[in-house]
Amino acid sequence: MEVLAAAIAVGLGAIGAGVGNGMIVSKTIEGISRQPEAASKLQTTMFIGVGIVEVVPIIGVVIGFLAFFSS
Amino acid sequence: MEVLAAAIAVGLGAIGAGVGNGMIVSKTIEGISRQPEAASKLQTTMFIGVGIVEVVPIIGVVIGFLAFFSS
Amino acid sequence: MEVLAAAIAVGLGAIGAGVGNGMIVSKTIEGISRQPEAASKLQTTMFIGVGIVEVVPIIGVVIGFLAFFSS
Amino acid sequence: MEVLAAAIAVGLGAIGAGVGNGMIVSKTIEGISRQPEAASKLQTTMFIGVGIVEVVPIIGVVIGFLAFFSS
Amino acid sequence: MEVLAAAIAVGLGAIGAGVGNGMIVSKTIEGISRQPEAASKLQTTMFIGVGIVEVVPIIGVVIGFLAFFSS
Amino acid sequence: MEVLAAAIAVGLGAIGAGVGNGMIVSKTIEGISRQPEAASKLQTTMFIGVGIVEVVPIIGVVIGFLAFFSS
Amino acid sequence: MEVLAAAIAVGLGAIGAGVGNGMIVSKTIEGISRQPEAASKLQTTMFIGVGIVEVVPIIGVVIGFLAFFSS
Amino acid sequence: MEVLAAAIAVGLGAIGAGVGNGMIVSKTIEGISRQPEAASKLQTTMFIGVGIVEVVPIIGVVIGFLAFFSS
Amino acid sequence: MEVLAAAIAVGLGAIGAGVGNGMIVSKTIEGISRQPEAASKLQTTMFIGVGIVEVVPIIGVVIGFLAFFSS
Amino acid sequence: MEVLAAAIAVGLGAIGAGVGNGMIVSKTIEGISRQPEAASKLQTTMFIGVGIVEVVPIIGVVIGFLAFFSS
Amino acid sequence: MEVLAAAIAVGLGAIGAGVGNGMIVSKTIEGISRQPEAASKLQTTMFIGVGIVEVVPIIGVVIGFLAFFSS
Amino acid sequence: MEVLAAAIAVGLGAIGAGVGNGMIVSKTIEGISRQPEAASKLQTTMFIGVGIVEVVPIIGVVIGFLAFFSS
Amino acid sequence: MEVLAAAIAVGLGAIGAGVGNGMIVSKTIEGISRQPEAASKLQTTMFIGVGIVEVVPIIGVVIGFLAFFSS
Amino acid sequence: MEVLAAAIAVGLGAIGAGVGNGMIVSKTIEGISRQPEAASKLQTTMFIGVGIVEVVPIIGVVIGFLAFFSS
Repeated sequence: MEVLAAAIAVGLGAIGAGVGNGMIVSKTIEGISRQPEAASKLQTTMFIGVGIVEVVPIIGVVIGFLAFFSS
Repeated sequence: MEVLAAAIAVGLGAIGAGVGNGMIVSKTIEGISRQPEAASKLQTTMFIGVGIVEVVPIIGVVIGFLAFFSS
Repeated sequence: MEVLAAAIAVGLGAIGAGVGNGMIVSKTIEGISRQPEAASKLQTTMFIGVGIVEVVPIIGVVIGFLAFFSS
Repeated sequence: MEVLAAAIAVGLGAIGAGVGNGMIVSKTIEGISRQPEAASKLQTTMFIGVGIVEVVPIIGVVIGFLAFFSS
Repeated sequence: MEVLAAAIAVGLGAIGAGVGNGMIVSKTIEGISRQPEAASKLQTTMFIGVGIVEVVPIIGVVIGFLAFFSS
Repeated sequence: MEVLAAAIAVGLGAIGAGVGNGMIVSKTIEGISRQPEAASKLQTTMFIGVGIVEVVPIIGVVIGFLAFFSS
Repeated sequence: MEVLAAAIAVGLGAIGAGVGNGMIVSKTIEGISRQPEAASKLQTTMFIGVGIVEVVPIIGVVIGFLAFFSS
Repeated sequence: MEVLAAAIAVGLGAIGAGVGNGMIVSKTIEGISRQPEAASKLQTTMFIGVGIVEVVPIIGVVIGFLAFFSS
Repeated sequence: MEVLAAAIAVGLGAIGAGVGNGMIVSKTIEGISRQPEAASKLQTTMFIGVGIVEVVPIIGVVIGFLAFFSS
Repeated sequence: MEVLAAAIAVGLGAIGAGVGNGMIVSKTIEGISRQPEAASKLQTTMFIGVGIVEVVPIIGVVIGFLAFFSS
Repeated sequence: MEVLAAAIAVGLGAIGAGVGNGMIVSKTIEGISRQPEAASKLQTTMFIGVGIVEVVPIIGVVIGFLAFFSS
Repeated sequence: MEVLAAAIAVGLGAIGAGVGNGMIVSKTIEGISRQPEAASKLQTTMFIGVGIVEVVPIIGVVIGFLAFFSS
Repeated sequence: MEVLAAAIAVGLGAIGAGVGNGMIVSKTIEGISRQPEAASKLQTTMFIGVGIVEVVPIIGVVIGFLAFFSS
Repeated sequence: MEVLAAAIAVGLGAIGAGVGNGMIVSKTIEGISRQPEAASKLQTTMFIGVGIVEVVPIIGVVIGFLAFFSS
């Protein structure tokens, strides 16, 4: 049961991270293609947003590894 | 069962945080690409919103860790 | 079973809070990027709305902690 | 089973309150950003609508607490 | 089982009331922001609609309380 | 099982009534905000439509009460 | 089991009737708000359509009552 | 089990009939509100389409009654 | 189990026929309201399409009746 | 179990055929209402597409009948 | 169980083939109604695409028949 | 159980291949109907994309056959 | 159970690869049909993106084969 | 159970990676087709975003392999 829990935690986290980062990065690329001179400013915001989105899935990964090696 | 509960709490929290933060940060990037001079004001609002969205998933992470180490 | 209930309460609350706050804050950022001079008025409304949306998930978090420590 | 029922009641109530209030408050902010002079009138309607939406989830919270402390 | 039934009745009722009232009140606010002079007429219709939408969830709340105290 | 049946009948009825009435009343409010002079004619049609939509959920409520008090 | 069947029949019927009638009546109101002089002709068609949509849910209600009183 | 089958047949049939007839009748009303002089021609087509859509749900109702009275 | 199978076959068939015919007939009515002089040509195509869509649900009805009377 | 399998095969086939044919025929009718002089060419393509879409559901019907009469 | 597997394979294959072919053929018809002189070139591409889409459902049909006759 | 696994692998693969190829080929046909002179270049890209999409479903078919003949 | 796991891994991977590659390749074809002179540059990006998308499903295929031959 | 967990982890990860990378790469290609001179800058952002999205699914793959070889 611990391995199944690890799989669910990482799997749902992958979906959440994929949807969230996909929205952020695709908007960033759309913004850069419109105004290439604002690329550095947009990328800064993108890295902040991506980092925030990745917090919970990464912890899900940590819990997944803990659940895996404690089984 | 405690490990499965930890996985569900972190997994659903990752989806909620991903969707919520994805909407906020992507709109921020879209706004900066339109008006680069309003970047600091938009980022301030973004940090407030992102912080509010992250409250419940982070508590879900806390409950997940508690559930994990109490099993 | 109490730990699973805590996970469900916090997880569904995270999804509800993420979607609700994501809609509010993203609209606020979109509004500020259009009219930067109305930022304070929009943020005031945003804080009220965000506070109202967070009521039920926070209570879900409270119930989650109660369920966790009573198990 | 009572704790699981409390979690479901609060969790579904959080989703309902998040979606409903998110729609109302985001439209209010969109309206204020268009016509800042109508802010007080829009906020009055927003408070009425938010109060009405919160009725059923708050009762769900009450039932959740009752179910929790009667277990 | 009675407590679980009460939770389901109130939870589904909260979703229904949230979606229905969210659509009505958000359209009202959108209408007021366009024509502020029609605010009273729109609010009258809003109250009627909100009252009609709340009928069934409120009865669900009543059944929820009955189911809770008869358990 | 009768109480669970009552909860399902009222809960699904609440969702159906919420979605249906939400569409009708929100369109009525949108119509009044465009043509305030047609408000009485639109409200007449709204009351007819709302009454028709409420028929089946109200009967679901009746069956819910019958199922509740026969348990 | 008969009571659960009655609840499912009436609940699904309420969703079907809500969605179907909501689409018809909201389009009628939208049409009247555009051309108020065609109100009687639109309402006639609306009553026919609403009557047709309500046929199957009403029979579901009848089967629900039959299932309830035969239990 | 026969009564549950009757409920499922009628319930799914109600959803199918509601969605199908809702699309047809709402488009008819939209068409009449644009060209009131083509009302009779549109209603003729509407009756044919509605009759065709209702075939399968009505047979579902028949099977539902047969399943009910054979239980 | 045969009666439940009959209910599922007819119920899913009703949803499929409702969605398919609803799309076809609503487009036909939209086309007639734009060009009333092409009504006969459109109706001919509509009858062919509706007949093709109805093939599989009608066979589902046949299998439903066979399953019902062989139980 | 064979009858249930027949019901599932025919039911899912009806949904697939309904959605696929509905898209094809509704686009054909939309095309004819724009260019009535291209009706024969569009209908030819429609018949080919409809025939291709119907292949798998018809085989599902065949398997359904085989499963039914072998039970 | 083999017959149920055959039903699932053919049923899901019918949904996939219906959606995929419906998209392809409806776009082809839309393209022909815009440029009737490119009909042969579009139909050639359509046949290639339809043939590619049908590969996996046809194999699903083959597996369905194999599963059926080996039961 | 092996036959059910073969059915699930081929069925989900058919849905994935249908959606993916449907998007690719329908866009290709839309592109050819706009610029018929770019047909060969578009078809080349289409064949590459279709081949890439088909990789995983075809392997699913292979696993399905292996699972079938090893049962 | 190993064969069922192989089927799930390959089936979900096929859906993910189909949706992801379908979005990428269809956008590429849309871009080439607008600017045929940028075809080589777009195809280069397409191959990179397609290769990245295919990584996880291919590994799912590898795990599927491992799970199959270890059963 | 370990193999099923590996399949779920890799399968959900494939869906998340497919959706996320599909959004990013398709937007990149759309941006390059509009401004071919910004291709290198867009690709740089694309590689960063794709790398971030792939983190969690790759770890899911790692957990999948660990779960597989520990069974």
